[in-house]
Amino acid sequence: MQRVYNFSAGPSMLPLEVLEKAQEELLCYGDSGMSVMEMSHRSRDFEEIIEAAESSLRQLMNIPSNYKVLFLQGGASTQFAAVPLNLLSDHKCADYIVSGQFSDKAMKEAKKYGDIAIAASSAGASPSYSTVPKTERSDFRPDADYVHICFNNTIYGTKFPYIPDTGNIPLVADISSCILSEPIDVTKFGLLYAGAQKNVGPAGLTIVIVREDLIGNARPDTPVMLNYKALADGKSMYNTPPCFSIYMAKLVFDWLLSIGGLEEMKRRNERKASLLYDYLDNQTYYTAPVDKNCRSMMNVVFVTGDPALDKKFVAEASEAGLKSLGGHRSIGGMRASIYNAMPYEGVEKLIAFMKKFAVENPKL
Amino acid sequence: MQRVYNFSAGPSMLPLEVLEKAQEELLCYGDSGMSVMEMSHRSRDFEEIIEAAESSLRQLMNIPSNYKVLFLQGGASTQFAAVPLNLLSDHKCADYIVSGQFSDKAMKEAKKYGDIAIAASSAGASPSYSTVPKTERSDFRPDADYVHICFNNTIYGTKFPYIPDTGNIPLVADISSCILSEPIDVTKFGLLYAGAQKNVGPAGLTIVIVREDLIGNARPDTPVMLNYKALADGKSMYNTPPCFSIYMAKLVFDWLLSIGGLEEMKRRNERKASLLYDYLDNQTYYTAPVDKNCRSMMNVVFVTGDPALDKKFVAEASEAGLKSLGGHRSIGGMRASIYNAMPYEGVEKLIAFMKKFAVENPKL
Repeated sequence: MQRVYNFSAGPSMLPLEVLEKAQEELLCYGDSGMSVMEMSHRSRDFEEIIEAAESSLRQLMNIPSNYKVLFLQGGASTQFAAVPLNLLSDHKCADYIVSGQFSDKAMKEAKKYGDIAIAASSAGASPSYSTVPKTERSDFRPDADYVHICFNNTIYGTKFPYIPDTGNIPLVADISSCILSEPIDVTKFGLLYAGAQKNVGPAGLTIVIVREDLIGNARPDTPVMLNYKALADGKSMYNTPPCFSIYMAKLVFDWLLSIGGLEEMKRRNERKASLLYDYLDNQTYYTAPVDKNCRSMMNVVFVTGDPALDKKFVAEASEAGLKSLGGHRSIGGMRASIYNAMPYEGVEKLIAFMKKFAVENPKL
Repeated sequence: MQRVYNFSAGPSMLPLEVLEKAQEELLCYGDSGMSVMEMSHRSRDFEEIIEAAESSLRQLMNIPSNYKVLFLQGGASTQFAAVPLNLLSDHKCADYIVSGQFSDKAMKEAKKYGDIAIAASSAGASPSYSTVPKTERSDFRPDADYVHICFNNTIYGTKFPYIPDTGNIPLVADISSCILSEPIDVTKFGLLYAGAQKNVGPAGLTIVIVREDLIGNARPDTPVMLNYKALADGKSMYNTPPCFSIYMAKLVFDWLLSIGGLEEMKRRNERKASLLYDYLDNQTYYTAPVDKNCRSMMNVVFVTGDPALDKKFVAEASEAGLKSLGGHRSIGGMRASIYNAMPYEGVEKLIAFMKKFAVENPKL
């Protein structure tokens, strides 16, 4: 069976070299005589894997030494609670920029724990969330414990074209769908978190990068598995971590280093995204509804303007080996997620299919 | 490289057939053209996997239809908080039987959320936790919201030889290290939970089996990812689940069904455990410190009586391809975890090594 081009928003494509390496080692890792899946997390072999994973990630993202890197479970949705549980101080106040469904969910989860305000929202844009709100420092309450954003909005295909200026207030960002797609200045953030299942590895791993001074002030009733202090003190092994997912992430990090790191990854991603957006901008059959200034390099949303035609497009693309091109179930249309592991040829094939489909299905 | 016998307490051995199947499908699952790790959790292929996993587990454990099966993340340690957050009622009162480190941790985590009492404890046994407390119905407060036990104590090598009679009070059990080792009467419990990394699959998956009437009463400030209602309503997909671990679990469930289910698994496990305990009981070089009535079929603890000799044993066994035989770092000595996937020959090889070691290292 031939491998397909998988445009899923996540879980999504992994580099073929990474899958092949994992396959090769699946029954026996190195000279351990066992699979990584069978290995005690306290074994020297696994300790080397998790240490190497952290070291490679630090190198790739240029993470300063005053930030902890945590390999956790539960997805970004668990961080929606962990962030306020750990970062809200006694007066419990934080500001959220709402630029899509996930930042809205994060905001609503935080409301369980404090005085949460919406500093800015693009819910009212047309279409909803098709842009990212502009903000300036005065939009945030000076006594906010943190400001939260979702940096890339997977569902809507938008991305913050700027890093909000929050002054001394720690900026927290969900970077699930753009982590490792290009360099990011970690020092501008107090905390970054990401589910692994887009650019890192298999689902079931969550990465948290948190400045040390933000650790240690969790509410007393915080579940221990959501308490950054316990998790950092345990070096991500307060309990058994998702070992195999961490191993896969390490292989992905090594692959990224081998191709030249995030500068090279950015070059490749820009090349792929430009190819697709340039095509969209120079025809009239498909519409890209997103504010051009806020376009995501990872998730490219487009529609024909006719829901029945959109549905036909997704089905016929799938038949042609271009998988999971349907938009999120809440907005419909099409979405091509072109994460790090999507090769340039995948985007070329997609555009060829789009051209063919447009010719074969003229609008009335 | 030859595969070893891995006596790790978890993560631990997986059936070779399961690993081989996963290896075969790693780059391409069925005719999907992609790895399970790359598959959208909303795809038909993955929906079939998670539905089949649940169906096989229900068949194996004979789980009644008024129980939900949840495939979650975060390990048993996350359930230590989720159980009280979901099950404590307004007057917030629960009883714990403390039979080891993990039930002690579970009890302490619950204290964040309510009036928690120790109904019975074997901490004072000699050695500590070498037996399981006997209890009767009058040991529990009549108004307790639930009674919590850890059914098999991985660290100490003990197992409850009985199911506590709690009357109408729901019984909650951590079955991480004995799940699927033998049939269990699910109807005797209100809630069962288990980390996957012993008898189910790779670390990073947690199974919760919960009676429906216990769902829906979580504290309002419960993190959504710990709220059984949200997780059950989302059919374990409130957010992206640990897809690959669920796939591996499905392969393990299918393997168990193929060998004849839990009756046959029990027969095999009893045969392995008897071989080892019978040897221990009929020599004097090694001591098995656990109350014979409470012996675990999964974790067999023994010592030479000399910590330096114990250390030598573990090191030389490892050289001989018998891995991870060290006791938990908190108690030392030796522990042979002989979970479902450990073949009978592994135990034979261990005993042969024990005999050889005893001859070569006479005690002074």
